Amino acid sequence: MTLTVHHLKRSQSERIIWLCEELNIPYELKVYAREPTLSAPEPYRNIHWSGTAPVIQDGELALAESGAIVEYILSKYGNGKLVIKPDQPNYADYLFWFHHANGSVQPTITTMVFAEFAKISPDDPGQLIMRNRFQIGLSGMDKRLGEFEYLAGNELTGADIMMVFSLTTMRLFLPYSLEEFPNIMAYLDRVGKREAYQRAMKKGDPDLRPVLDGIPQDTFF
Amino acid sequence: MTLTVHHLKRSQSERIIWLCEELNIPYELKVYAREPTLSAPEPYRNIHWSGTAPVIQDGELALAESGAIVEYILSKYGNGKLVIKPDQPNYADYLFWFHHANGSVQPTITTMVFAEFAKISPDDPGQLIMRNRFQIGLSGMDKRLGEFEYLAGNELTGADIMMVFSLTTMRLFLPYSLEEFPNIMAYLDRVGKREAYQRAMKKGDPDLRPVLDGIPQDTFF
Repeated sequence: MTLTVHHLKRSQSERIIWLCEELNIPYELKVYAREPTLSAPEPYRNIHWSGTAPVIQDGELALAESGAIVEYILSKYGNGKLVIKPDQPNYADYLFWFHHANGSVQPTITTMVFAEFAKISPDDPGQLIMRNRFQIGLSGMDKRLGEFEYLAGNELTGADIMMVFSLTTMRLFLPYSLEEFPNIMAYLDRVGKREAYQRAMKKGDPDLRPVLDGIPQDTFF
Repeated sequence: MTLTVHHLKRSQSERIIWLCEELNIPYELKVYAREPTLSAPEPYRNIHWSGTAPVIQDGELALAESGAIVEYILSKYGNGKLVIKPDQPNYADYLFWFHHANGSVQPTITTMVFAEFAKISPDDPGQLIMRNRFQIGLSGMDKRLGEFEYLAGNELTGADIMMVFSLTTMRLFLPYSLEEFPNIMAYLDRVGKREAYQRAMKKGDPDLRPVLDGIPQDTFF
């Protein structure tokens, strides 16, 4: 069986390339450019019925959803790496940060992106709720990263694989600043120095300078 | 150690009560009403720094995020129930539907709720993207539930515990119809007949008739 990672450029699928590079496992990488509308091209949308990125194939299996793919690859090919097990003291931390990425941080940013698209006033009450949630989330993350080098503890885990996209490439969609969060900035600096992260970004998005500093970026569309 | 489930009424925390009832494990339940603004009251928001629902306490530990809590309880108290293991043929299905709930379905609905709040036109291009995503997601779920009684296969699992809220109580926030999805409707009927689900809803939201039919509901605010 061959593990194939289908990467839609500038998307959450960069997580899966990074994961494979950290695990140092064999995989075939297929890279797809976004359409001018930012949608995934049709061949990408047809791999899994959901049409979402990321998606992998493993033999007959096509699997979507970042969280599912990361758990699947860690369980099947991870050999115990990058996982915190139930008998370890930081198991609940691992679970929290793993699920917080796509359960809270990413949806909050996405809602704010769609509000920008629709030109909703920044003073709209719903948007104030979202911005407030987002600030609480970043503050909590900054506090955590003042105590530990990575989210689940002092080693990189699947929780970081899930979270980093929202703090980096996602800022091409919503150009927010991280300058008031020095521990998150130091964390991104550590991530950016990892050879596996550098290899992943070069393979998946070779024409993109990884968004690792704290400064708001220009959106790319 | 006592497991305490803090339930914010009409919220994702109903999942955790349901999980505990299915597992038939001891837990202490604390129920909180929403404020008139729909926010969680301050005592709720102070249990975990994120301020989000659900949250549990287990001895010294306070843990937030539905996905993290469900995995934690299943791992620590589940005794192998409601989980599909990596060596089972439907492991990837279990992972997909578990993560699809809060990774795609719930965020899509939330974005649409905030668009309603902000009175964005239904023809707004961003909203068309979201509605399209949502329809694709429901169609895929309906197809799946035409083949199996529950999302991961013919037995209830943690994947259903994650998903059902988005198909039921969440329709008090966004009154969408399920009438074109007969398999999802039959699934909700099966869920509603489970004694553990009935007990959970009676304990957590005794003044709410569970939203188990396909008809759009009036929002409660």
